[in-house]
Amino acid sequence: MANDLTEAANPKARRRGGGRAGNAQRRGSAAHEQMSWRIPVNHDRPTEPLTEEGVQAIHDGAMRVLEEIGIEFLNEEALALFRQAGCTVEGTNVRMGRDWVMEMVARAPREFSITPRNPERTLPIGGRYLLFGNVSSPPNYWDLEIGRKVPGTRAHCANLFRLTQHFNCIHFAGGYPVEPVDVHPSVRHLDVLFDKLTLTDKVCHAYSLGRERIEDAMEMVRIAGGYTEEEFRATPRMYTNINSTSPLKHDQPMIDGCLRMIRRGQAVIVTPFTLAGAMAPVTMAGAVTLSIAEALSAIALFQWVQPGCPCVIGTFTSNVDMRSGAPAFGTPEYMRATQMTGQMARFYGLPLRASGTCTANVPDAQAMWETCNSLWSAVQSGTNMVYHAAGWLEGGLIASPEKFVMDCEMLQMIQRYMEPAIWDTTPDSIALDAIREVGSAGHYFGIAHTQARYETAFYAPFVSDWRNWEAFDAAGAVWTAERAHRLYKEILHHFEEPPMDPAIRQELTEFVERRKREGGAPTDF
Amino acid sequence: MANDLTEAANPKARRRGGGRAGNAQRRGSAAHEQMSWRIPVNHDRPTEPLTEEGVQAIHDGAMRVLEEIGIEFLNEEALALFRQAGCTVEGTNVRMGRDWVMEMVARAPREFSITPRNPERTLPIGGRYLLFGNVSSPPNYWDLEIGRKVPGTRAHCANLFRLTQHFNCIHFAGGYPVEPVDVHPSVRHLDVLFDKLTLTDKVCHAYSLGRERIEDAMEMVRIAGGYTEEEFRATPRMYTNINSTSPLKHDQPMIDGCLRMIRRGQAVIVTPFTLAGAMAPVTMAGAVTLSIAEALSAIALFQWVQPGCPCVIGTFTSNVDMRSGAPAFGTPEYMRATQMTGQMARFYGLPLRASGTCTANVPDAQAMWETCNSLWSAVQSGTNMVYHAAGWLEGGLIASPEKFVMDCEMLQMIQRYMEPAIWDTTPDSIALDAIREVGSAGHYFGIAHTQARYETAFYAPFVSDWRNWEAFDAAGAVWTAERAHRLYKEILHHFEEPPMDPAIRQELTEFVERRKREGGAPTDF
Repeated sequence: MANDLTEAANPKARRRGGGRAGNAQRRGSAAHEQMSWRIPVNHDRPTEPLTEEGVQAIHDGAMRVLEEIGIEFLNEEALALFRQAGCTVEGTNVRMGRDWVMEMVARAPREFSITPRNPERTLPIGGRYLLFGNVSSPPNYWDLEIGRKVPGTRAHCANLFRLTQHFNCIHFAGGYPVEPVDVHPSVRHLDVLFDKLTLTDKVCHAYSLGRERIEDAMEMVRIAGGYTEEEFRATPRMYTNINSTSPLKHDQPMIDGCLRMIRRGQAVIVTPFTLAGAMAPVTMAGAVTLSIAEALSAIALFQWVQPGCPCVIGTFTSNVDMRSGAPAFGTPEYMRATQMTGQMARFYGLPLRASGTCTANVPDAQAMWETCNSLWSAVQSGTNMVYHAAGWLEGGLIASPEKFVMDCEMLQMIQRYMEPAIWDTTPDSIALDAIREVGSAGHYFGIAHTQARYETAFYAPFVSDWRNWEAFDAAGAVWTAERAHRLYKEILHHFEEPPMDPAIRQELTEFVERRKREGGAPTDF
Repeated sequence: MANDLTEAANPKARRRGGGRAGNAQRRGSAAHEQMSWRIPVNHDRPTEPLTEEGVQAIHDGAMRVLEEIGIEFLNEEALALFRQAGCTVEGTNVRMGRDWVMEMVARAPREFSITPRNPERTLPIGGRYLLFGNVSSPPNYWDLEIGRKVPGTRAHCANLFRLTQHFNCIHFAGGYPVEPVDVHPSVRHLDVLFDKLTLTDKVCHAYSLGRERIEDAMEMVRIAGGYTEEEFRATPRMYTNINSTSPLKHDQPMIDGCLRMIRRGQAVIVTPFTLAGAMAPVTMAGAVTLSIAEALSAIALFQWVQPGCPCVIGTFTSNVDMRSGAPAFGTPEYMRATQMTGQMARFYGLPLRASGTCTANVPDAQAMWETCNSLWSAVQSGTNMVYHAAGWLEGGLIASPEKFVMDCEMLQMIQRYMEPAIWDTTPDSIALDAIREVGSAGHYFGIAHTQARYETAFYAPFVSDWRNWEAFDAAGAVWTAERAHRLYKEILHHFEEPPMDPAIRQELTEFVERRKREGGAPTDF
């Protein structure tokens, strides 16, 4: 099944089979070599800290939260729907029985796909697929040239979309890679979505921030794809991601946006932000229990409304810094919570979203050990969609192009790590004849076995400096953040927009202009 | 079994149970808070890329190397011993049948312990234990103050021993953390071992570099522990690590040193350095096959000589940089080779050694993503001893105190990651009552459930900066390498030598003086 879908999503996978799969490929006028586009398949058995009893304990805890304590839904329509479904609604509090919840959750597909305007970028979601998206939603921007934290602008945002499009290891364009605060909130979604849809051709996210914004977003994605309404609805073309307001609350615009999306056949991700010790219990099992209850309550609602609609469960469980109470990311507790949620997602048969995160303020050593911890825990948990996989700093409050470039090296390495060729043990790979040929005196550089495989045998980096000290020093001893900065500038310099039919571009432009004339969206949320 | 041994090795483990296990503990006059000493147990199921057939294919390949191609032993005594054992010796080439090899390897203990001069630092080797050692053997040194690569000195080396002793997450003192090239090679082992044995009280390594050096080292460890010869021999007190000269060769001094060590009851690690595409096949399975054959040939010899002697199999399989032919570390191929070797080590019932490695020249972002990759692959492979776990740069050619400090943050996080308290799912951890108490309106900061657990709930970092940008910026926006540099200076400033009986210290001093008068060791190796 997994392999079938890979080939469906990668129509050229077979033909490309003999290519430089694990390695660099020069892409036209690109600024550097990079891996070709591919849909990685996670071949590793997940890391599972919980015993079966542990999974049952969290499940039972989450069910008791839903049955005994309930979730607040600050959304009238949702309350009516829960009443209709036979749940116990008191004011805004909704309690629901586990049988109903499990029946609803079982309706969600284990796998589905999202097809963006470029169908070659179709993404299979679920199963063993492992997909990466750009950083989403930081209000601030930092780069090495500016040297300090500044409010995000539309120009910053557009440049980060260019990186999103440029890097083949970025599969989907998440939320705004930085919030462009120089654009008025009433029309921000129009300008940024226009930029996103013209600068990228990848699967696209829209925020659930009120009726107007999500409807505008769906309309713009429909226009950009050149779809009729029927074609737009026929299969997921985009997705939204909502956070609950932990503890135990779903807000009006989030639920509203999801209901509008699923009714038009689009995908939703429900990601509680359960920070252990602040908005969630100080124990990781407690924080995960709360997260599961919050997520399932919304997913159950969506499955009641639209049976079989594509839903993803998200995890964003971390812990506070004991000293300051501020969120910390990429911690050991974060890793284990992600793995535990992975076990729960498999228990419920739902695709999983996790994140690439760090606490660090600048793209330095700490940023990367925290990011590596979070990325590897995403891999270990069987995550399907890795949000914020490139460009995130300061617990998500800063977006950085240098960090984006550095993270993409890690993402490429994870993609390469998942290529079965590395651990192939056919006789050709065991290489007994080569070992015999070289014996104890020579070396393997020149032999035919090496020559035939040399170019594709190993991962080739693009921002790592693998030279020895002397060569590194002679080239100016440039540290990684500075190399990433230079590369980011090069990428922007060479960037080419993905093709778009001029008529479609015109229609998009006119839509944005019309909606701006109409005043855009309310800003009282 | 694992838990029993943990408690044997940690006599205070139970009493300390209520302490701040996962967290910081102020240690007398120390420069910063750090985790207490502990023997981490790896609770994760290993990541296993190889199928059972894959394991068999590598095993069969290694056995055919030993049966059909043979290994060169440039050591007369070894050749005589192999002849005595019935192996086929032609010149320096030794071929051995798989039945004999497997019979010998089966004699090696799956677990053993090493007891240093401070018995509270006794290390259980094997099973699920995960132990870390300092960087070993770089010829060069780099720190932020010097700002360039310089040849190592005795002073650099001693300072790195101080870090080795200071950090509780460093379990054993490996080889010279930097080669002190200002000390003449004939007496270098005497001076450095004196420094190591007086500045640290942890399990100690000695190089197998000729009869005199290894005998001197054993004698000095015996003296430092205040042991009689019988006590020294009664249980492993130290270990050596040898590299084969890949492909397919073991050199004279390495084998000689091991034979001397095992005959006095000490432990040996055999670590081939099989660089795929250079000294080993370009395929990772081929490189692992070669590594296994080289390692088992020596271990079989040692088990023939001294049945049941403590042996560890090491992995140091990586790949070259396709562009330069230079070694690369922390790569996807390196990670998979380490995991594959882990599967083979379990197949043979041998404890495993791997490493913390990187290619980077300076302690920056790249250094940490490469190091994280290598450290996590050590964890995933079920490694028992992680060499070079702190302080390594430039593919092992540079030792850096800043990198040492930064790596120790990662090691502490791995230790914390392995604490089952994180994924505990007892009712107290599921925290349903706390979830009920807080409901949907409040937060968890102030409630009793949080207050009772707050101080020990989460990992507390010592070099990571978890403050928000504003606080980080107000404090000078100091990047991680600089913070690590300051901390390293602080640690040295506050360093206190571990206690040593003055009479023992005197005896050690006199031994060194006498051996220096005698001329030390030959330098023609």
